[in-house]
Order: sequence, then C-alpha cells, then structure tokens
Amino acid sequence: MQLGMIGLGKMGGNMAARLREKGHDVVGYDVSPGARDVETLSELVDRLDAPRVVWVMVPSGEPTAAIVSELGDLLSEGDIVVEGGNTHYVDDAPRAEALAAKGVGYVDAGVSGGVWGRQNGYGIMVGGGVEDVERLRPVFDSLTPDDGGGFVHAGAVGAGHFVKMVHNGIEYGMMQSFAEGYELMVASGIVKDVPGTFESWREGTVVRSWLLDLLGRALEEDPDLSELRGYVQDSGEGRWTVQAAVDLAVPAPAITASLFARFASRQDDSQAMKVVAALRNQFGGHAVTKAAPTDAEQG
Amino acid sequence: MQLGMIGLGKMGGNMAARLREKGHDVVGYDVSPGARDVETLSELVDRLDAPRVVWVMVPSGEPTAAIVSELGDLLSEGDIVVEGGNTHYVDDAPRAEALAAKGVGYVDAGVSGGVWGRQNGYGIMVGGGVEDVERLRPVFDSLTPDDGGGFVHAGAVGAGHFVKMVHNGIEYGMMQSFAEGYELMVASGIVKDVPGTFESWREGTVVRSWLLDLLGRALEEDPDLSELRGYVQDSGEGRWTVQAAVDLAVPAPAITASLFARFASRQDDSQAMKVVAALRNQFGGHAVTKAAPTDAEQG
Amino acid sequence: MQLGMIGLGKMGGNMAARLREKGHDVVGYDVSPGARDVETLSELVDRLDAPRVVWVMVPSGEPTAAIVSELGDLLSEGDIVVEGGNTHYVDDAPRAEALAAKGVGYVDAGVSGGVWGRQNGYGIMVGGGVEDVERLRPVFDSLTPDDGGGFVHAGAVGAGHFVKMVHNGIEYGMMQSFAEGYELMVASGIVKDVPGTFESWREGTVVRSWLLDLLGRALEEDPDLSELRGYVQDSGEGRWTVQAAVDLAVPAPAITASLFARFASRQDDSQAMKVVAALRNQFGGHAVTKAAPTDAEQG
Amino acid sequence: MQLGMIGLGKMGGNMAARLREKGHDVVGYDVSPGARDVETLSELVDRLDAPRVVWVMVPSGEPTAAIVSELGDLLSEGDIVVEGGNTHYVDDAPRAEALAAKGVGYVDAGVSGGVWGRQNGYGIMVGGGVEDVERLRPVFDSLTPDDGGGFVHAGAVGAGHFVKMVHNGIEYGMMQSFAEGYELMVASGIVKDVPGTFESWREGTVVRSWLLDLLGRALEEDPDLSELRGYVQDSGEGRWTVQAAVDLAVPAPAITASLFARFASRQDDSQAMKVVAALRNQFGGHAVTKAAPTDAEQG
Repeated sequence: MQLGMIGLGKMGGNMAARLREKGHDVVGYDVSPGARDVETLSELVDRLDAPRVVWVMVPSGEPTAAIVSELGDLLSEGDIVVEGGNTHYVDDAPRAEALAAKGVGYVDAGVSGGVWGRQNGYGIMVGGGVEDVERLRPVFDSLTPDDGGGFVHAGAVGAGHFVKMVHNGIEYGMMQSFAEGYELMVASGIVKDVPGTFESWREGTVVRSWLLDLLGRALEEDPDLSELRGYVQDSGEGRWTVQAAVDLAVPAPAITASLFARFASRQDDSQAMKVVAALRNQFGGHAVTKAAPTDAEQG
Repeated sequence: MQLGMIGLGKMGGNMAARLREKGHDVVGYDVSPGARDVETLSELVDRLDAPRVVWVMVPSGEPTAAIVSELGDLLSEGDIVVEGGNTHYVDDAPRAEALAAKGVGYVDAGVSGGVWGRQNGYGIMVGGGVEDVERLRPVFDSLTPDDGGGFVHAGAVGAGHFVKMVHNGIEYGMMQSFAEGYELMVASGIVKDVPGTFESWREGTVVRSWLLDLLGRALEEDPDLSELRGYVQDSGEGRWTVQAAVDLAVPAPAITASLFARFASRQDDSQAMKVVAALRNQFGGHAVTKAAPTDAEQG
Repeated sequence: MQLGMIGLGKMGGNMAARLREKGHDVVGYDVSPGARDVETLSELVDRLDAPRVVWVMVPSGEPTAAIVSELGDLLSEGDIVVEGGNTHYVDDAPRAEALAAKGVGYVDAGVSGGVWGRQNGYGIMVGGGVEDVERLRPVFDSLTPDDGGGFVHAGAVGAGHFVKMVHNGIEYGMMQSFAEGYELMVASGIVKDVPGTFESWREGTVVRSWLLDLLGRALEEDPDLSELRGYVQDSGEGRWTVQAAVDLAVPAPAITASLFARFASRQDDSQAMKVVAALRNQFGGHAVTKAAPTDAEQG
Repeated sequence: MQLGMIGLGKMGGNMAARLREKGHDVVGYDVSPGARDVETLSELVDRLDAPRVVWVMVPSGEPTAAIVSELGDLLSEGDIVVEGGNTHYVDDAPRAEALAAKGVGYVDAGVSGGVWGRQNGYGIMVGGGVEDVERLRPVFDSLTPDDGGGFVHAGAVGAGHFVKMVHNGIEYGMMQSFAEGYELMVASGIVKDVPGTFESWREGTVVRSWLLDLLGRALEEDPDLSELRGYVQDSGEGRWTVQAAVDLAVPAPAITASLFARFASRQDDSQAMKVVAALRNQFGGHAVTKAAPTDAEQG
C-alpha cells in the first residue's frame, strides 16, 4: 500500500527500505536532503492519495510534536498518522484528539528492533482504533518478522507507547539483575572465570536471554570491562515506568532500583551520603554545644 | 569412565541415564530400592575401582552433609567426591578440608537443566582443583549439551555453588522485572491484550528470553492468571545471594527487592504496616495525653 | 493585622482562633454556615480593607483550585492570596501567574501542627516573593510557636509546598524504618518485650523522636497491635516526593520503598507475584510442549 | 554493689565513673595501665567478693571473645559476666553456654548514650535470665537516666544485643530518609534555604527528632556540607539487621536501601554499572556478528 514516511534516519530509513522491498509505495521525507523524495511536508501530503497514511519516525518530544501538529493542518478527513517514536504515552491522547477534530486518525506504535530490524523484522506494539489498525495491517505485516509474531494491538490510543515503555522498564530490571550478579562474582574473589561463567549460562539455564548473549559478547571483547566507566544514562522510558507505577499504586521495587542505580552512577559525590556522614560526625561528640550526642561507636 | 551416582531421583537418575548412554559405567545408589545397583554406600564404594569418582546428587542440607560425611569414612586417598546439589557455598570448604585430610578430593558442581537435561544436556558450573576437575572432564563433557557450551570451571572449591547461587539470584531479579511489568499493564486499564503483548515480545525485542517464553506459555494456559495466588516460596539461593551481597559490601537492590517481594507475598498481614497504620492513627489526634500530635491531614 | 480565612475546619478554624487570640482581625468564610462571618467569598472580599490578605485553608486539589480561581476574579491589585493546603508544588506557579496578571500576590504555605497547633503553634514553610512574605510576617509570627522557630521562607512560589512535600516523604521513611524494626523484633521470637523495648528507646538513644513517642503510646494502648490491620493509605505527598526524585534524577530508595510498602499493604493479592508463581510452575516441567523447561529444584 | 569493669575507654571508663558516683564499688581493668586498679584479669577476679559481677566493655569481635573466654577460666559458680559491647547477637548463646558449664551467668547488654552518658545516663537493653538480670538491677538503675526510663529486659540471652542491632538498623533508615530529603531539596533548585528548612522542622513537625537536631547543628557549621565527602562506613549492626531480615523472611526494604547506599558511597566506580553500560553499548549495534542487536535509541 501507499505510505508517507517522515524521518529517514537509522530507524525510519530502514523501515522505508523494508517496506519498499515488500512492495509498498513509500514516499519519504526528512529535514535533511539526500534520501528524501519530497522537499516539504506539504509536498509529501500532496503526493499521497487520499485517504493517506503517514508514519512519523522522528525523535520524541518537540520534533514529533511539531510534525504531528503540522500534519494536523495538512491532512484531511480519513487520513491516518502513525506515531512510531518513543513518545510518552500520556502525550498520545491529546494528539489523537486534536487530529480527530479534523477526522484524522492516530495510531501510536512502539517499535523495537533497531538497525537489525530491516533484515530481521521489527517488533511492533500499537494502540489505536480497530479500524485504523486494520487498515494499517499490511504495513505491520511487512515490518514484523517474516515467520510471524512480533505484533500486538495492545489497546486504544496510547497503549502502544505504554507497552513499549513497560518493555523498557523490564529491560532495566533485567540488565540490573545481570549487573548485580556480575559485581557479586567479581567482588567475591571466589570466581576466577567470570566471563566464562556468563558464557556457560547461555545454554540450558533459566537466565538464558538475548541480554545474556550481549553480555557474553561484551565480556569477550573486554573481559574485565576495564575500558568502561560505570556511568549510565537513562532514557525517558525508565522514568515514565516508575511514574506510572506511582500513579497506579503498583509496587515496582526492582525496576525502580534499576533506575536509581543509574542516577547514582552519574554522581561524582552524593549529597545524600554527605548528610549521613555529617550525622555520623555529630554522633562522634566532636561538637561541644548543649545537645547530648551519642558516641559513634555505640550508635 | 566409571562413576558412582548417589541419589537417583529426577536429577541424579536422569544424569546417570545420560552418562550411560554416552558409554560411562555408572553404579547407582539411592535410599529407596528400585533403580539402585547397590544396597549400601559401602557396597557402592566396594564396587568402584580405585581411584574412585562418586557424584552426590541428593537434597542439600542435612541429607548431603550426612552422605559426604559417610563417604569420608569409606573412601580412600585419590578418590573424588562431586557434590552436585544446591549447597550453600560456605559449606563446601569445610567438607573439602575434611575429605582432604584423608587424601580424598572434592569438587562442587552447580547443575542446571532439570528434567529436560537428560535430552538436551545440563549446564555445569564447577569449583575445585585443576587436577580433580580435569580428571572429571569426560563426565562433564557427556553431561553438557552435545554442541558444546554449558560448562565452566569457575574457581576453587565453593566457586561452582557460588556461581549457581548468583545465577539463581539473577533469575529472581529477571522474574520480578517481568512481574512488575505485568502488574503495571494490568493495573493501567490501558492495555487490552496483556498476554498478546508478552507474546509479541518473544521475537526481536531486547527482553526476549527463556523466561519470557515460559511466561508466554503460562499466559496462554491462563490469560489472567486467575488460577494462581500471588504466593511465592523462596529457595535458599536467593537468600544466600543477598547475604553474600551484604558480606561483600555489594549493593544488590534489584535482587534484594525480588527476595523481599516473595517474603511479603506470603504474609496474610504485615506487622510492619500495622506500625505505620498505628502511627497514622496517632497523628489523628485521637489520644489526648501530653504529647502534641500533628493532624493526619497535614502530616 | 486583618486577614480573611477561607476554610474553618480543623485546621483553618484553629488557625483563625489562634490569630484572633494574638490580636489579629480575622474574617472567616466556610462553605458550611456556622462559624463563618460572611456568607460568600464576595462578601469576604468586601469586608476586607485593601490591600487584602486572604488565607485559603481548604482541601487540596479541586476545592483549592476553585477557590483560588474565584479569588482571582474578586481580588484587586496589591492583595495577597496565601495557599495553605497540601497542594502539589507544581500547581503553585500557574496559580501565581494567573493572579499576577491582575497584580495579586501569591504565597504558598506548608502548615504542620494539626489539632495541637492552636495551642502549641504551627510549623510554617512558605514560598513566595520577599515583599509578600514580609508583609505577612505578623501572621506567621503569631502562628508559629511562641518561643520562636518553626518558620522558614524556603524560596520563591512553590518552595513552601515543595519542602512540606519533602517533609512528608522523610516522614514516610522514618515510619517505615520503625515499622521494619518492629516486625523484625516480633518475628525473631527472641524479643519478649517489644513494647518495652520501644519505650526504653525514648530516652537517650539515637532514634529518639516524636514518632517514637507516638509509637510508644500506640503500643501502650495495644501492645501487639492486634486491633489494627496492616493496611495503609498514602497521601499525595509521598507519591509526589518519588516523582520529584525521578524528575530530578535523585536516588531516593528508602522513601520509595516506604511508598511501595504502602501500595502492597492494600493489595489482597499481588498480580506481580502471580507472575512469579506462574514462572516457577513452568520451571516445574508440568507443561509438555516443545520448550525445554528447567527443573524447579535446580532453577 | 561491687563490680569489675573490664575496658576503661570512652565507654567503660565513663560508666565506671558514673557507677562510683552512685556509690558502687568498681574495680577497673584495662590492657593499658593508667586508670586501671588491677594489673591482670586474674587479679581483678581475686579482688572481687564472690559471687562476682564482671562487666566487659571492650571492642566487639576478637577482643571481647578473648576476654570472655579467659573469664570462663577464672570465674566460679554464681558469678555473672555482663557483655556490654556491640556483639553480634548470634555470638551470645555460645558464650553463655560455655560459661554455664561452670555455673557462671551471662547477660548481654546493648548500651547507648556515648560520651554524654556519664552525665545523662545510658540506654540499656539486656538479655539474660531473670535472676541474673534482677541481681544486676542496682547497676542498671544507676547507669540509666536519673528520671527513669532507658531500660528494658528484652528477653533471654542474645535479646539485648538483638534489640541494639535493630535500634541501629532503624537509625540507618532514619538517617537515609533525612539524607534523601536533603538531596531532593538541594537538587530541586527551588529551595533557597535548605539549612533553614531543616531548622524550622525542629519544632512542632512530625519529623522532629534528635537526628534532626544533629542535622540542624551540622548544617549550621557547614551549610552546604562542602567540607564533607559522601563516603560512609557501615558498622556491623546494619549488616546484621539485613541478615536477620533475610533469615526471618521479613521484608526490610528501607533499612536495606540505607545499607546499600552506604556500600555504593564507598565505590570509586561501580562494577555493576559497567555491565549496564556494556549492554547499552552492545544495543548500539557496533558489534557485527550474527546476533541481532536492537538499536539503543529504540531499546
């Protein structure tokens, strides 16, 4: 089918290429000239036959908001916007409502698969109305792996980005679990072959997983990870997962611990731990004013 | 090679069978008659040619301790005991020392693979001296998967059980991560197809793993897990992992959160939360004695 | 000085009374007749001499929003609104801006002290402009304890509610700490006099505190807390504290653990723990399809 | 009454002094000459009239073990040893049993109060038999504050050190709670007067406590704690508290988080976070082998 793709970077460019290989008619637009087929969004819309399908695959936040807003002005009743970035799910409903006022549909799609997706297919999790999603079915079928799987219509608008967010939250927890296990083995002094241990787990064990495969590869390249610092960024999805847990009154201690560990990893010094140190100093009885401190030794 | 196998249950029995299929000469003993080849430990020792190899595959704790102790009396210089249960790693060194006094070797082996291991091979993580481990190499080669992998000599005595313990600690964290993600999706009211979401993640995503495969299967059988209670036992390995973290001064918040979540799952009511409730009651200013409580609303 | 007080409940009514005792001229309004001096907000504004000071002490959320909005219509340049409820600090700036458009000032005040505050004085933490805060100084001086202390001008608009929120977050952590200690002692079977232990800590120890005094009193009334269930509500401040931690990339594991413990206390069953139970079932090898489960015993 | 005091340092020396002021006959011994009344333990025992009371107030671990063992040789039936150090409670029962074989009693005492205890009195939490504790009552009465309170007979041998351990675990959680609140306020950029905020809380609020008094004093001396590093040691009691929680299947997330925060504060770099960084690198698709990595951006 015919489709406009906005954003032709590592993700959108590869997705457009895969769709073309599968016989779809893709008109591409990007802010940078080069791969783009049209010079402006307006031209993109003109080039597509109504009712149109436009897939937005640009960085989340401001860039996506600007594109979706502009599309709202350009598109017509019966068209559909697919928002494929890592958008916070709470932003989906307002966008959908704004478009709905003009009769334009909105489907949010969490996309997983990265640079290898072009070849292997992508995981696609979508939210939106049944009719809109069904109309897009040929596109989803071509994007997901050839042998089936990799697709879910998770619910109404916002559900696609919600489950992508939860997916990443789970990912945080799994990575942290391996990380804690690694540090334990290194610190123990007992385990003489830590990389070999992870490698041995890749077959037959309960923890076998793609993340373990990646860790095996990382340790093969750098057996004691000496070329890395333990400094870890966090993307929005981890924070949003914890905020959703708080909003929904769901205890999420492992995922939250994983997020906090990343926060701590980026601190040169901890303001909080300064307070604990200060309190221990005060216990020590060094200060000599009226209050009655307790000896540090006896806490 | 020749080997005595003590314990012919689900694990030991299958391991003995796999070893025999691979051409080893296995003499089996079990407390229950039936599959056993000899009636007593003493007879087992007599039947083996020195220097002997005896693999102990009985429940950890008292049963294992008793068998190893008895073997200490029966075996001779040059023999080797392989301890394959889920033993706390701190118990390995004392056992090895006791046996070493008689010139008997000791190798601890963490074994993973369960009922499917007979067919697919087992993951084996061992601790012990290089010579002892090398002598056992033909046994390990036959137990691990046919296409290689699944074996590590992790370090000296205790290292095998240590890494098996860490493996299980990581497993706790991974399971908890999936569990928190599930509850978030269920609680959200946004995700209309939770089983389908997990199913869709099995291909192409970062969280793909054997545990996710299992979860997919569980949700296929019981889509809202309505036949289960959220009551979860914990085996020793999770506790030992946290204790090792404490001993080694390693922060392990995600694994610990997973253990505590299991503890909490088994409580009908929480003593701790009674205290918090009591304190909030006190805030309410119902009591009328000298102290100056603060209004609950203004906390 | 002259002051309008909106909301004459347990908090506002007592605060009005304390201010009158200290010689201030308070005009009170409440939705319920009875204690109120005027029938409508409009009448309240008419009764006050410009430039006016109006203290809003009604439930946070909608009720406060409605009152502040209506005051925006009624008040004039040079008047000041003091918002004394447990408002989320992020709501303060928009309210202040809306009022500023008309030249009306806004000061947010976190108030602590509850039903005993009338007699003992209140803790007051305010955010707002220096001039506005200084103009209100006589009111703050009369509300805080007679012997000084209990007041801070924490920063610009929003800072008062922010620090009140943090205060309550800390309170969550302290309560949880005592609660965990209590459960440990009860579970140990070693401590035969738990109430007596808490009581003994009230003098001379590091943990002595008003919360400990309250706990001592609660245990005196009900030594094993048998009349309570471990079911604990959470007010907004705990959640907002965690959300602020996430927004600010500050690790706050103890406060977050306290919040999650409250969430868990209110669950009859845990969806998350059902997942862990389901996974352990799958390990057990009961299912008979293609995948290769690992024995639960060997996990 | 008559009493031998072993260990005349900051704790034991002051306690001996307080007891003498209250009319007790104290014979002191220390490894260092100076304050000691006798040159050897043996002389100490000779100087006391049977049945004797000997209070051991030396560093926990090896020093205490050595002294108690030596006393076992020197003392006679009917004598009592009081062990006042910060001993792990699990060590108490074996010591008591060893002494009981000779008819010597054993009482464990957790002591709080530090350098100010001589003047203000100490908090004393004891474990032991009723008769032994009653015989020591005059000593406890003199050590605790003059206005009563500060004493509990918590249970049998070990209970005194158990509750002192829990006391310190609670202390960890309280300190961490204040610390997290401090960091939140500093990071917010909203709170312009953090020291003033803590100071204002010292009167009338729910979090008022001796630790808050200490924090107020610390911030008065160094308002932004710039002279400190966020590097915090941990004493055994925090670790033992978490281990007890694990042993007793009691969830203790806040206290454990406090312990782990201290562990993390002492790491120059985190091995665990290196693993997370390595995994994120692998996502990035830099490696070029067969596996199918997912794009970091799309996680």
